[in-house]
Amino acid sequence: MQSDATYMARALALAARGTGWTSPNPMVGCVIVKQDVIVGEGWHQRAGGPHAEVNAYAACGAADTFGATVYVTLEPCAHEGRTPPCVDLLLTRRPGRVVVAMGDPNPHVAGGGIERLRAAGIRVDVGVLEAEARRFNEVFVKHITTGLPWVTAKCAMTLDGKIATRTGHSKWVTGEAARAMTHRMRHAHDAILVGSRTIMLDNPSLTTRIPGEPGRHPVRIILDAGNYLSEDRAVFAADRQGPTWVATSEQTAYPFADDTLLLPPGPEGVDMRSLVRELGGRGITSLLIEGGGATLAAAFEAGIVDKVCFFCAPKLIGGDEAITPVQGRGREVMDAAIRLRDLRAIPVGEDVLLEAYVCTTTETETADA
Amino acid sequence: MQSDATYMARALALAARGTGWTSPNPMVGCVIVKQDVIVGEGWHQRAGGPHAEVNAYAACGAADTFGATVYVTLEPCAHEGRTPPCVDLLLTRRPGRVVVAMGDPNPHVAGGGIERLRAAGIRVDVGVLEAEARRFNEVFVKHITTGLPWVTAKCAMTLDGKIATRTGHSKWVTGEAARAMTHRMRHAHDAILVGSRTIMLDNPSLTTRIPGEPGRHPVRIILDAGNYLSEDRAVFAADRQGPTWVATSEQTAYPFADDTLLLPPGPEGVDMRSLVRELGGRGITSLLIEGGGATLAAAFEAGIVDKVCFFCAPKLIGGDEAITPVQGRGREVMDAAIRLRDLRAIPVGEDVLLEAYVCTTTETETADA
Repeated sequence: MQSDATYMARALALAARGTGWTSPNPMVGCVIVKQDVIVGEGWHQRAGGPHAEVNAYAACGAADTFGATVYVTLEPCAHEGRTPPCVDLLLTRRPGRVVVAMGDPNPHVAGGGIERLRAAGIRVDVGVLEAEARRFNEVFVKHITTGLPWVTAKCAMTLDGKIATRTGHSKWVTGEAARAMTHRMRHAHDAILVGSRTIMLDNPSLTTRIPGEPGRHPVRIILDAGNYLSEDRAVFAADRQGPTWVATSEQTAYPFADDTLLLPPGPEGVDMRSLVRELGGRGITSLLIEGGGATLAAAFEAGIVDKVCFFCAPKLIGGDEAITPVQGRGREVMDAAIRLRDLRAIPVGEDVLLEAYVCTTTETETADA
Repeated sequence: MQSDATYMARALALAARGTGWTSPNPMVGCVIVKQDVIVGEGWHQRAGGPHAEVNAYAACGAADTFGATVYVTLEPCAHEGRTPPCVDLLLTRRPGRVVVAMGDPNPHVAGGGIERLRAAGIRVDVGVLEAEARRFNEVFVKHITTGLPWVTAKCAMTLDGKIATRTGHSKWVTGEAARAMTHRMRHAHDAILVGSRTIMLDNPSLTTRIPGEPGRHPVRIILDAGNYLSEDRAVFAADRQGPTWVATSEQTAYPFADDTLLLPPGPEGVDMRSLVRELGGRGITSLLIEGGGATLAAAFEAGIVDKVCFFCAPKLIGGDEAITPVQGRGREVMDAAIRLRDLRAIPVGEDVLLEAYVCTTTETETADA
């Protein structure tokens, strides 16, 4: 007999198949088990499409699901959205037990689904693989609870901490596997942010290119750090894929951009906190900042970053004038460092991905105590 | 029945207990097995002391070892050194089989031990866990074949590649576990090298401090990069533990040092290739370079470094003027990067140790092809 955790792990793995396609919804997976056999499984495949529970019951076909156990990674919805409430479906199908990884973090609906199931006499167990489920849907949880996008800071650096040589040369720092993973990260984020210097120097297209698979192009947001931008860049090309917005504090017209976000000024062009508030309001639930060093410095100093994903390549470039992942003025003493937690190293081809979370103020104070 | 590899892995684990104490000898472990039972095991505990085979047979006590299988991580010596040849011991004890991980890399004795055993009718199998054994004794192999010390470059950096803030502040970058590992690295190396700037700025004592265990203090070698050094530094303290040498290209007297190495000039004071040749000649088989950034840059540019051990802390310092692990002028384009191989990330407390090997010129050309 398999444990609840085993089935929930399967449900989470199914949920992950929705990566990049469900925003602004969460990724959700569902497994229906009867007499220790999986009779149906499904996941939320795309925003606007059926929820995981609906797909899982559909996959059961003619199988008898009365009294089954339903594993679902998120509390079933009890409210009418673009699709009917999943709780109604469950009440019709009469499972014997519903196992939920985490309650709905949406403050307006939290608990509603679980309460209605229990009121109807269905046993509901909550909290199986809860930590995993919360981390898995960290983007959704942050946006639904704060209205702000989840922010990932990404760079590719040499082992001695350089993202470009002293001449600004940066092609390529990492190998193919790491660059492929970058495209998967773009696919998974609603928007991508880079500084105008990176646009002028490297002229990236910032599209999602995943070989043999469809990918979603994030909204490209270019920070105007002082009228650097010109129309001849790939992100403004007439045949560009997906919209390009310019974020600026100046009353400058960018006729070649799809939209211009006029914001209060800040170190790298605009005030970063105002930028993420504006993006959250526009339904951007996740933002990938791909640098360069000055843009990342401004983002970290503004305290908007949630997660750090730095790819580290087995190379050394050297140079006290080479460009580092986080530039700007920097902190004066080690104790003033920006604290990260849960540092993990993940091998990616010949490179290593160093992944960590930015500590909240409270976490930093606890670490110092 | 256990495999040859299992017993050899045990022999390697025993050999590792000699870490730091066997130089200029290799670390060697030995396991004696009869009828699938370990009847004795031993390792080379310290330079000048009995070899692994002698200790292993001594541990057998009154057990009958006739016809046993002897697992030894390195070819048994056939030459008279500070102790009698181990081959003579084996010929007396008459094992049924001798399993050797790797032949003696010493060009003057290679093959001698194995040949003598075979000539006496004892079966010898060579090459069990050979790659592991070679890597394990990489220091000994390099020194015995080239006369040069094995060189490890070490630093402690923040996740954004800073070893100190723009003001030079660096206490502390990493946590306790990483700092404890640094002391084990010092213990394992014959000598330690730092630049005079680090000595004047941080005033480290550069001793080995391992709680609850004895440690060996490496010879401290200070690079004089232009008459920075003064007598009031901890490495020159009257009650210092272990010798301190100064390496310089100037005819300066350092009465407070135990020795002065006068060498041709180079970017950070002395020519690094001349320095390692001089150290190899003095019986230094391994050198740990602990920085700072300018010293590491000079060492990498001179091509003397074999292994990179960079500790990475979950912190961000930022700053385009902060100090990075490898300073100097640096390479101009990414393709000119110093190539590393076998990048591995090892969690150490809250930090991660990034370990890699410097590619030889041939390896770099192959990678470019």
